[in-house]
Amino acid sequence: MKGVILDILPDAQLVDISHDIEPQNVRQAAYVLYTVYGYFPAHTVHLVVVDPGVGSARRPIAMRTPRGMFVGPDNGVFSYIMARSDEPVDALVALENPRYRLPWVSNTFHGRDVFSPAAAHLAAGVPIADLGREVHDPVRLSLPRLEVKEERVLGEVLHSDRFGNVITSIGVFSWPMNQERVLALAPAFSSEVNPPGDPSALQQLSAQRMLVRVKDETLLGVHRTYAEVERGSVLALVGSEGYLEIAVREGNAAQTLGLRPGDPVEMCFRP
Amino acid sequence: MKGVILDILPDAQLVDISHDIEPQNVRQAAYVLYTVYGYFPAHTVHLVVVDPGVGSARRPIAMRTPRGMFVGPDNGVFSYIMARSDEPVDALVALENPRYRLPWVSNTFHGRDVFSPAAAHLAAGVPIADLGREVHDPVRLSLPRLEVKEERVLGEVLHSDRFGNVITSIGVFSWPMNQERVLALAPAFSSEVNPPGDPSALQQLSAQRMLVRVKDETLLGVHRTYAEVERGSVLALVGSEGYLEIAVREGNAAQTLGLRPGDPVEMCFRP
Amino acid sequence: MKGVILDILPDAQLVDISHDIEPQNVRQAAYVLYTVYGYFPAHTVHLVVVDPGVGSARRPIAMRTPRGMFVGPDNGVFSYIMARSDEPVDALVALENPRYRLPWVSNTFHGRDVFSPAAAHLAAGVPIADLGREVHDPVRLSLPRLEVKEERVLGEVLHSDRFGNVITSIGVFSWPMNQERVLALAPAFSSEVNPPGDPSALQQLSAQRMLVRVKDETLLGVHRTYAEVERGSVLALVGSEGYLEIAVREGNAAQTLGLRPGDPVEMCFRP
Repeated sequence: MKGVILDILPDAQLVDISHDIEPQNVRQAAYVLYTVYGYFPAHTVHLVVVDPGVGSARRPIAMRTPRGMFVGPDNGVFSYIMARSDEPVDALVALENPRYRLPWVSNTFHGRDVFSPAAAHLAAGVPIADLGREVHDPVRLSLPRLEVKEERVLGEVLHSDRFGNVITSIGVFSWPMNQERVLALAPAFSSEVNPPGDPSALQQLSAQRMLVRVKDETLLGVHRTYAEVERGSVLALVGSEGYLEIAVREGNAAQTLGLRPGDPVEMCFRP
Repeated sequence: MKGVILDILPDAQLVDISHDIEPQNVRQAAYVLYTVYGYFPAHTVHLVVVDPGVGSARRPIAMRTPRGMFVGPDNGVFSYIMARSDEPVDALVALENPRYRLPWVSNTFHGRDVFSPAAAHLAAGVPIADLGREVHDPVRLSLPRLEVKEERVLGEVLHSDRFGNVITSIGVFSWPMNQERVLALAPAFSSEVNPPGDPSALQQLSAQRMLVRVKDETLLGVHRTYAEVERGSVLALVGSEGYLEIAVREGNAAQTLGLRPGDPVEMCFRP
Repeated sequence: MKGVILDILPDAQLVDISHDIEPQNVRQAAYVLYTVYGYFPAHTVHLVVVDPGVGSARRPIAMRTPRGMFVGPDNGVFSYIMARSDEPVDALVALENPRYRLPWVSNTFHGRDVFSPAAAHLAAGVPIADLGREVHDPVRLSLPRLEVKEERVLGEVLHSDRFGNVITSIGVFSWPMNQERVLALAPAFSSEVNPPGDPSALQQLSAQRMLVRVKDETLLGVHRTYAEVERGSVLALVGSEGYLEIAVREGNAAQTLGLRPGDPVEMCFRP
């Protein structure tokens, strides 16, 4: 894939974001992309391949927002970005134009034969509309559960990372339509809340006064770091992406607690 | 190695092709290089280290073809490229000139001390002839078996990848001296053959009408994707490099079938 | 982290040195950095993250020497470089200036929020003094044991790599204050010593005439390559970084011999 890109755009700056997405876990890929793309320069082209090897009839697509461009399969991997009301999608096309594919397209490696040439041509300045016809019905994943009630937030387990840390849907940067409500809630829990949008707000509001309930566990407080608890203890903390995580210090929370995607998570005010 | 290259050529564009070659598997490295180098920009310098850590008396060499330059050990890793009649080698030298090595050369890490400086100087424009004396007797691996008969093709297992998919020598891009014969064969099997050199030709000719025999298995048809069979089923398909592969959907074909490099593979017309 | 750097300095040349440091093994990170940084171009900015995920109160720091700049935690990871008398540290500051951090700093990912912006701004030409106040009391690891006696050298096990090869503190490039003494010793062992500073000096002096003692093992000779002994044999050799290593050919020396960091190693003249 990198050879193909450099053959089209020799000065391309290439960065590998992750090779640790579980095979076929489109939701995990969607989450990782959603949490990192904002750190890259504006107008970066983000190329996603998830479930390689399983050839399929999924359309290859390209998308543009005010923040960047996105190339990959139409399997929902861009859903969370599509849902942002503050960065509306302004173009979404199918990668149909043979001029912007390799001459021979294999059945099993669209990453190399279709996505990479499209990404390189976009980065080189080809207008997105030249790549193919507009797409009006992209595949969209349901947004993760996140309900903000009087004194509690209901969310769900998204996935676990390779260390067994369990990432939940509860976060200040959470799924766009709920963001204001989560922020609106924040002051009720803390007198020292940072400016809106500050991820440490969630940390402050919850550090002392929160309970987190997941399965049969009730966790007291939301910690700042793993180091605050004993080895082997279960804890809730706010991860580096600004989402509530369940972890076991030097252990595997997903296995220990038997947590799976979709399991409910509740964060509430300590009585 | 990258530090050494950048110290010589600060603007070098560096790409890691693979860190998944089995230790000391020169044939696998030769195959991977052969299948990817054509995707890179012309005049790319390809640097290969295989079986690092095992110091040896193998000559370090550099090679030039119309398509690119190649730096690495004289252990056969460039054999398949050397065999291409359409891209004849136009220079092959030993890396002897101390000016293009690091001042101190370790016994165990020629990749850093010899190959990297040579590759960087070549990329920076140093003529290949300045690196050392011409080599006339490079180590050459035997080319993989590929015999094209009346109504069948005889090949062999090359290696398996880290997922246990088994790659064979049968392919339209196969070992240069046989390419015309494979393509000449194609129309006999299909009325819808693509232009010569098109990897989907093999796919088309075989999709419906072929049998693949390997060990005690007879596989019906050559599939386009893993998704066409049940989980756990053995299938033949054309991989992303254009070669016939034996796989088990969501399984490990090398282990399940006990296949090893050199095992015969036969593809024939369905009676 | 790479996104953050490129957002500040789009032309940055990014190289991953290692992702194989054991979690929280600051000494191993210090060693790897010490052995590789000299191969990179002068003025390279080296960014180190070790024990990620365990948030802590350690200061983030930046350091400058005549050879390059270094950004990371104040946990001793730069100790070996600080100890070089030939490349004295000429600036050492705490990363305090909010202008050179991300607007929101998480508790758990200083690599992204603090180190990466600092490294990018340094590479872009921001004076190191602008990043924060001078640091006078950095954390320093004790230097590894290395005593040069009449006819023997006493050192210790530093760590083992992921293959189980055991790296010791005995080397011609060893810990700065001892370097002259090690080199001074060299001629006593060999009539064919290379110029001072040549790592092959140690190889030559010891190839034939040395004994290495570690735990209950006495190893005869220091070998040039693994290939000189049988599979499964224990051997001493000089690794690619110029340090004495204990290895088992195609085996795991750390496990086989039960060696741990700090275990004494003695190299002496063969009686």
